[in-house]
Amino acid sequence: MSVTTAQGFRAAGVTAGLKTSGNPDLALVINDGPERTAAAVFTTNRVAAAPIHWSRQVLRDGRVDAVVLNSGGANACTGPEGFQNTHATAEKVADILGISATDVAVCSTGLIGEQLPMDKILPGVEAAAAALVSDGGAAAATAIMTTDTVPKQAAWTSEPNAEGLSYSIGGMAKGAGMLAPGLATMLVVITTDAAVEAEGLDAALRDAVRVTFNRADSDGCMSTNDTVLLMASGASTAFPDMDEFTAGLTQVCATLARDLIADAEGASHDIAITTTNADSERDAEVVSRSVARSNLFKAAIFGNDPNWGRVLASVGTTDAVFDPDKINVSINGIQICRNGCIGDSRDLVDLSGREVTVEIDLNAGLASATIWTNDLTHAYVEENSAYSS
Amino acid sequence: MSVTTAQGFRAAGVTAGLKTSGNPDLALVINDGPERTAAAVFTTNRVAAAPIHWSRQVLRDGRVDAVVLNSGGANACTGPEGFQNTHATAEKVADILGISATDVAVCSTGLIGEQLPMDKILPGVEAAAAALVSDGGAAAATAIMTTDTVPKQAAWTSEPNAEGLSYSIGGMAKGAGMLAPGLATMLVVITTDAAVEAEGLDAALRDAVRVTFNRADSDGCMSTNDTVLLMASGASTAFPDMDEFTAGLTQVCATLARDLIADAEGASHDIAITTTNADSERDAEVVSRSVARSNLFKAAIFGNDPNWGRVLASVGTTDAVFDPDKINVSINGIQICRNGCIGDSRDLVDLSGREVTVEIDLNAGLASATIWTNDLTHAYVEENSAYSS
Repeated sequence: MSVTTAQGFRAAGVTAGLKTSGNPDLALVINDGPERTAAAVFTTNRVAAAPIHWSRQVLRDGRVDAVVLNSGGANACTGPEGFQNTHATAEKVADILGISATDVAVCSTGLIGEQLPMDKILPGVEAAAAALVSDGGAAAATAIMTTDTVPKQAAWTSEPNAEGLSYSIGGMAKGAGMLAPGLATMLVVITTDAAVEAEGLDAALRDAVRVTFNRADSDGCMSTNDTVLLMASGASTAFPDMDEFTAGLTQVCATLARDLIADAEGASHDIAITTTNADSERDAEVVSRSVARSNLFKAAIFGNDPNWGRVLASVGTTDAVFDPDKINVSINGIQICRNGCIGDSRDLVDLSGREVTVEIDLNAGLASATIWTNDLTHAYVEENSAYSS
Repeated sequence: MSVTTAQGFRAAGVTAGLKTSGNPDLALVINDGPERTAAAVFTTNRVAAAPIHWSRQVLRDGRVDAVVLNSGGANACTGPEGFQNTHATAEKVADILGISATDVAVCSTGLIGEQLPMDKILPGVEAAAAALVSDGGAAAATAIMTTDTVPKQAAWTSEPNAEGLSYSIGGMAKGAGMLAPGLATMLVVITTDAAVEAEGLDAALRDAVRVTFNRADSDGCMSTNDTVLLMASGASTAFPDMDEFTAGLTQVCATLARDLIADAEGASHDIAITTTNADSERDAEVVSRSVARSNLFKAAIFGNDPNWGRVLASVGTTDAVFDPDKINVSINGIQICRNGCIGDSRDLVDLSGREVTVEIDLNAGLASATIWTNDLTHAYVEENSAYSS
């Protein structure tokens, strides 16, 4: 259930001293091979952090030998000095492990606009390298947490193939606020011992991310540091069917994405907003996302109020194909809006549980899509006003 | 300072019994002429309320004799019965005043998805018609309030022209949540005693709304009921210079828009976000609005935290022309981000007052635009979770 579930990987998580709390804040994951193929997707935010600029270059040749991740500082909006610090971190990892710095990806998360304390990072890298173990996944997952309350890990193992070989896919994620599409304030590392070329990894990862992380939208805010990195060791010697591999990878991504939403800052409800019978998948996604971005709707759910008027008001701001008089809305299974008008009594809707499902039936086609989000709570406001992060 | 500042108008505000609070909830404004030209802009929300559908038809011929407004119910998502109720309300006004129902605009605001209690509306219209007076503007402004804490009114009077004639423009507004572009959960009635054809009114109103109400964005939520109605009586007999008229109208709209933001639900800071040196006015508006939509930035301001990283993270999600390494950001006059990197100390920024100015210098051109918004507070969450509205 971690980045060390797949064979061929070691990991570590240590306390470098970046966090004033004294909690672990530096993680290292290395691929011992025999293969070292990799793929990644990065934030689409145009104000991208130094480690994003660095890691994009590292991924160019589809090979990653190691990834070093720090919490306690985003290294974003830090100029040339910030980039030099990322470079120096990768060089340090490379020196210790005897690999090339251009095969070392770097990820950072934390406050934007402050330089990293390199006098803590570099000794931290040494400590992490010394602590690398084949069951170090949990320690790594803990070290990348910021305002997360629990580490997020997931894994999946294939059925044995004709040669009796099976392979695994495992991953870890962090992310709590600034959690929105085009990824999130989110670092994800996924490992597999399947034998897959970088090109195949890239295609599978883009397919999986599109319907998982990119459909988690906690607060509509897109981070400068988002990274999802997939590394393959080939240690299982299994060459997977790529449809099966993509399905397994999607399952791991979906679990991690759902875990991120479940632990989003201050949330008291996890909300799955599904738009059905849309003219296109794009329409379904746009409609679901518009509702996921409505502070009014999200505050209503916090108050256990099935305020479907706020759903319709959001749907109405989109350019999706629909006739307002043919929209149905159900909340937790109760169709409280029928044909764009008053449906069953809102008193029938029970919102006392944490899980909330909203279904918006556009009656305009056959496509559907789900966006996962949270309610807007006092605790969200508190976490994001009382502390810089 | 009201819709009865201009000559030729009478108004009233009464308690019809729509609000459980017993506060006034029905307003009537009539144009006694001699002219009865009018123009209006309505919500662009595709889920438009019954009174929007009705009033769009009324405005087709550029003539409005009266407008009736109710709080305590939006009459949105109410189907054919809702439209019949709007029609019946206009007919009632027309019958009493001896005018045509097709010259009576209707505006509603309140909870979406419930039928209006017509047994209260129709007697309310009778009471309002009986109460019409030439200084009834303040009563009308009070009757259209929902979660507003104060009525919003504004007026402007021109200098005398060559013939010694001057004219006035006065208005009222309501709006507290669901306050965003393409108008807001906002009803605005503006009157003038200038003599202007409907076409001239329309052009002036669109110019004024574009840079005032459409740049107020409290919570990113667009209402189903937004209406800005401008009525001209010609009672001053002054034929205005249209540039002067538009400037005066813009001033009235700006005052009302600023008052709406100042009284937005739960807000503790009023934030003016100005983007300067943009490649186009559209770019400047998009950038300012992206920051105004960032819950993380808005929560930070609530916590008196000049978190410029959250400003940059929002700017980075837009497609505006800029180089991330050339952006400067000042908050309350302190340039805390210079060339996309760390600038002056954030400790220098004083956010203890209610007014906050954010200036984002894109260094990409000569255009600029300001969006007015609020912080995200516990009180916003409370107001929008504890009560259906």
